[in-house]
Amino acid sequence: MKVGIVMGSKSDLDVMMPAADTLESFGVEVEVRVISAHRTPDLAAEWAGTARERGLEVIIAGAGGAAHLAGVMAAMTPLPVIGIPVKSRSLEGLDSLLSMVQMPSGIPVACVAINGAKNAALLAVQMLALKYPELAEKFDAFRAKQTADVEAITVIK
Amino acid sequence: MKVGIVMGSKSDLDVMMPAADTLESFGVEVEVRVISAHRTPDLAAEWAGTARERGLEVIIAGAGGAAHLAGVMAAMTPLPVIGIPVKSRSLEGLDSLLSMVQMPSGIPVACVAINGAKNAALLAVQMLALKYPELAEKFDAFRAKQTADVEAITVIK
Amino acid sequence: MKVGIVMGSKSDLDVMMPAADTLESFGVEVEVRVISAHRTPDLAAEWAGTARERGLEVIIAGAGGAAHLAGVMAAMTPLPVIGIPVKSRSLEGLDSLLSMVQMPSGIPVACVAINGAKNAALLAVQMLALKYPELAEKFDAFRAKQTADVEAITVIK
Amino acid sequence: MKVGIVMGSKSDLDVMMPAADTLESFGVEVEVRVISAHRTPDLAAEWAGTARERGLEVIIAGAGGAAHLAGVMAAMTPLPVIGIPVKSRSLEGLDSLLSMVQMPSGIPVACVAINGAKNAALLAVQMLALKYPELAEKFDAFRAKQTADVEAITVIK
Amino acid sequence: MKVGIVMGSKSDLDVMMPAADTLESFGVEVEVRVISAHRTPDLAAEWAGTARERGLEVIIAGAGGAAHLAGVMAAMTPLPVIGIPVKSRSLEGLDSLLSMVQMPSGIPVACVAINGAKNAALLAVQMLALKYPELAEKFDAFRAKQTADVEAITVIK
Amino acid sequence: MKVGIVMGSKSDLDVMMPAADTLESFGVEVEVRVISAHRTPDLAAEWAGTARERGLEVIIAGAGGAAHLAGVMAAMTPLPVIGIPVKSRSLEGLDSLLSMVQMPSGIPVACVAINGAKNAALLAVQMLALKYPELAEKFDAFRAKQTADVEAITVIK
Amino acid sequence: MKVGIVMGSKSDLDVMMPAADTLESFGVEVEVRVISAHRTPDLAAEWAGTARERGLEVIIAGAGGAAHLAGVMAAMTPLPVIGIPVKSRSLEGLDSLLSMVQMPSGIPVACVAINGAKNAALLAVQMLALKYPELAEKFDAFRAKQTADVEAITVIK
Amino acid sequence: MKVGIVMGSKSDLDVMMPAADTLESFGVEVEVRVISAHRTPDLAAEWAGTARERGLEVIIAGAGGAAHLAGVMAAMTPLPVIGIPVKSRSLEGLDSLLSMVQMPSGIPVACVAINGAKNAALLAVQMLALKYPELAEKFDAFRAKQTADVEAITVIK
Repeated sequence: MKVGIVMGSKSDLDVMMPAADTLESFGVEVEVRVISAHRTPDLAAEWAGTARERGLEVIIAGAGGAAHLAGVMAAMTPLPVIGIPVKSRSLEGLDSLLSMVQMPSGIPVACVAINGAKNAALLAVQMLALKYPELAEKFDAFRAKQTADVEAITVIK
Repeated sequence: MKVGIVMGSKSDLDVMMPAADTLESFGVEVEVRVISAHRTPDLAAEWAGTARERGLEVIIAGAGGAAHLAGVMAAMTPLPVIGIPVKSRSLEGLDSLLSMVQMPSGIPVACVAINGAKNAALLAVQMLALKYPELAEKFDAFRAKQTADVEAITVIK
Repeated sequence: MKVGIVMGSKSDLDVMMPAADTLESFGVEVEVRVISAHRTPDLAAEWAGTARERGLEVIIAGAGGAAHLAGVMAAMTPLPVIGIPVKSRSLEGLDSLLSMVQMPSGIPVACVAINGAKNAALLAVQMLALKYPELAEKFDAFRAKQTADVEAITVIK
Repeated sequence: MKVGIVMGSKSDLDVMMPAADTLESFGVEVEVRVISAHRTPDLAAEWAGTARERGLEVIIAGAGGAAHLAGVMAAMTPLPVIGIPVKSRSLEGLDSLLSMVQMPSGIPVACVAINGAKNAALLAVQMLALKYPELAEKFDAFRAKQTADVEAITVIK
Repeated sequence: MKVGIVMGSKSDLDVMMPAADTLESFGVEVEVRVISAHRTPDLAAEWAGTARERGLEVIIAGAGGAAHLAGVMAAMTPLPVIGIPVKSRSLEGLDSLLSMVQMPSGIPVACVAINGAKNAALLAVQMLALKYPELAEKFDAFRAKQTADVEAITVIK
Repeated sequence: MKVGIVMGSKSDLDVMMPAADTLESFGVEVEVRVISAHRTPDLAAEWAGTARERGLEVIIAGAGGAAHLAGVMAAMTPLPVIGIPVKSRSLEGLDSLLSMVQMPSGIPVACVAINGAKNAALLAVQMLALKYPELAEKFDAFRAKQTADVEAITVIK
Repeated sequence: MKVGIVMGSKSDLDVMMPAADTLESFGVEVEVRVISAHRTPDLAAEWAGTARERGLEVIIAGAGGAAHLAGVMAAMTPLPVIGIPVKSRSLEGLDSLLSMVQMPSGIPVACVAINGAKNAALLAVQMLALKYPELAEKFDAFRAKQTADVEAITVIK
Repeated sequence: MKVGIVMGSKSDLDVMMPAADTLESFGVEVEVRVISAHRTPDLAAEWAGTARERGLEVIIAGAGGAAHLAGVMAAMTPLPVIGIPVKSRSLEGLDSLLSMVQMPSGIPVACVAINGAKNAALLAVQMLALKYPELAEKFDAFRAKQTADVEAITVIK
């Protein structure tokens, strides 16, 4: 089980690393790259275009502003692509969100919340769990624990 | 291969049916329901809570306004949930989009574009194709044809 | 007289506690819980579903982002539910607001301002004052004092 | 049981009448007025200021654009005031919504969705049901029927 | 020559005082008050309702959030009312702006930029300068100096 | 008494003419021009620059999109300039509004609501009424009649 | 002199053709193509990548929604790329605009107004006029005529 | 090769200087000015109106809020004008962006991202490179280096 994680700029690392950490906590291998849809378009095309044959099963792409990275990836691979709109320096991430989620008919991106790296990883796990029963079990355990953790602190007053 | 499609109101049918049609064109079986997160909460919980054991592998949920349906589904099932924000009567669908995509950490929804039912179906196919090689082949053929269709009309002048 | 206060995450405590404080200043008892619509859906359904029989008369729910908590509560109880959109880390609380206020026909939420916990409590008091004349008197006194407090500082120059 | 319904302009009648109809279907008496916060401020102050002594228990106010009506009402009465942002000719109702919901600390308005007149009425019923047990019973029946109505059409395919 | 300046809360003082300072620099007398449209509605009505007979010629009103103050003033006086949307704690002042500028037909407010207190004062001076020739002269001098000040720093490189 | 009315394009005529009609109903003379800040910048500068000496006392400017007309006028004249943001073909007039109202410190524009031509005229009348007592009387009469007109239709039910 | 015009979908033709017509009216040759950044990524890369050697000097790209086309073009060519955000079926073109204009540092797109095809062509002419003196003359004549056309209709009243 | 850079206020210097630095790194001469469209309209008209005869070939204009500077420049010169929306103190730069990009038909502005000064310079270089082959070569080298710089850090994990 292997998931590719790409981000448009090294400055997105802090936002994006929880995706890698979460996947690894489920025993899913990750490949993490900085690839810019605009500054390294050939690399983007090649990396996405060969993703399936390299053994990747899901791609997670995070970018801010005119965040084309997830869409560009999705155009070059049949694998499901999850997009993380990274909060930008102006407009509060609205630009990143709309650039990622409003994909045209024919090439979907699975968009999560602004800066939602952990959820992107969980979504990738859910996709992989369709195929790998042992991952489905781990995911069920994670969800049970997550529920228990909130229940443990439920009473404030 | 079976995908569940739910919508919050019968008035969403026109927006949502392309999801069913697209899935069926790939040979994926569908179960289509009108379930309101707010008016039929028990039904929603039960339908989502038993989805996996009923054989569903992916859930597609469409709703407008304070569009909680996809989130409510995602809370009750370990299956991946794809959300379709349905364009609302005011605010141009911005409310539906933000209500769907801005999920809290722990429970992701894979959000597609406003009214993006066809893309939701394609995304479900991409998820299932991880597990079913014959579907992966069909999806590759679909993508090749889609590319060829645009290329055929490329020259305007 | 008893009001239930729920919030989606422990991180909402600072925003939400003024609701509890305000209610207690009117002699209204409170029950304060952290309940996540998405991470603890069964708890949410049970807590809201038994709220009336436990003696609650109004529910106040605060959450941020895709803020479904108030709507999910409203779906499970006939009691009036007041929603507090909590300012989120991006989008300035617009997502929380639209997710709370744009409820579909049939299940209303009484939405107050972003981070408006004190007003949520006052609104609950106003509702209860319909039934409890002594609370109506206290509320009239509160309003008179509030007016006097502003009038006392009216002249700047 | 009596609820006051006011709107800022006669042109809001179509949007607002479902509030009156819904209340009457629950056996709640209504008083329906066109009162402009800006063009008839004295009337607004007097009507709201004497609402409680006239026997009103809840006020529903609908207006569009710089929708001050609900806030102006709330300032003049201790009764709970429900605001309906009416969709405006530009900005898709965003102006009406923000003008209504973002009330300052001390004077709450219970805001419902843009054009959400039916929900405003239901919310008023929920408030009154705290005091009038027979209304609580009618409301429970309404909710049960509403759930049944959606369940009856749940299966599309 | 006398201008009334009101603000909805003492916390608006820092934003609003440049309006007073600017007016005084033109030799225009000011009356500065904290008056809340919602917490002190009677004071607001009385202060605005007697403004003309007290000798005020223009009113400047600043408020944030559901910023009704300028509209409420405008409803009670025939004097021109200038509105200053004060930047709010969420939504970046968009709520304040829309609540002030989108006034219904019949009762205008002259809205300036978010936190634009100095411009509100200049606008008041321009209105008064129609009547007082000596003020027109001062305003012309101010504008000439303002232009010269920018021209003095025009060359950077 | 004379007011200049300018609009950026002949297509704005329908939105703008109520300003002229309203002013004439108060006996105020009007000069109505189509002047584009961008396509006829010299004409704009000359018309605004000579407005005061031609006898104009207030300028009303309406434009849509990147609506610079009112600001360009205000830069060239000491007269008060009222801006009408004209609803644009996209973005619901938000672009027109922000382009008009968010003027930098030093050069104010008195902005009214989107498409608020009648209110722009009333605001001009209020400014002129400071100087012309007979106009103040007419304005008082107008306001009294406006109030009476709404009061006449106040009771719906 | 030759300009390439691309659009993401055949449905953009009506919005985009004024760009071609305007360029031809200046004697600039055009190459008009339908190329989807997402459905035909290889074609997009190849067409943009060979644009300069094919003799194109400027590229105009129009697309709606998550409008990546201009950015994808800009990534593959050193030629200046002008972006036209096409008004989308929801969100009033805000998504198209932000997806086009908020390009990351390093790869600019010259964005014009939503649906601003004619202006995109004029901007291309202005760029080419730097190099071709005869085009500069034609552009000066166009601007003079444009000014005269507005001046001819300036007096309404 | 010479490019003019103007900004509306000295406070924009930090945002704007990267445009000058970038141009100079390409050997393009710059003329940097503070010129306010509103406070120094005559200077703006004269500076832009004589730009071509002074040897400028492109103009870059940055401003915030009701950012008219680029449009005002574009109205007075046939040279291509690039607009930089400067992030404002409220509204996150949305006002600056819409005021710049939504220009009316006939007078385009080439808008870049909010605070996108470096990209404005690169766009100017691309325009000039159409005419100056040596600049085209430098630009190709810059792009190759930029790509290499990102590729050098591509592998994170």
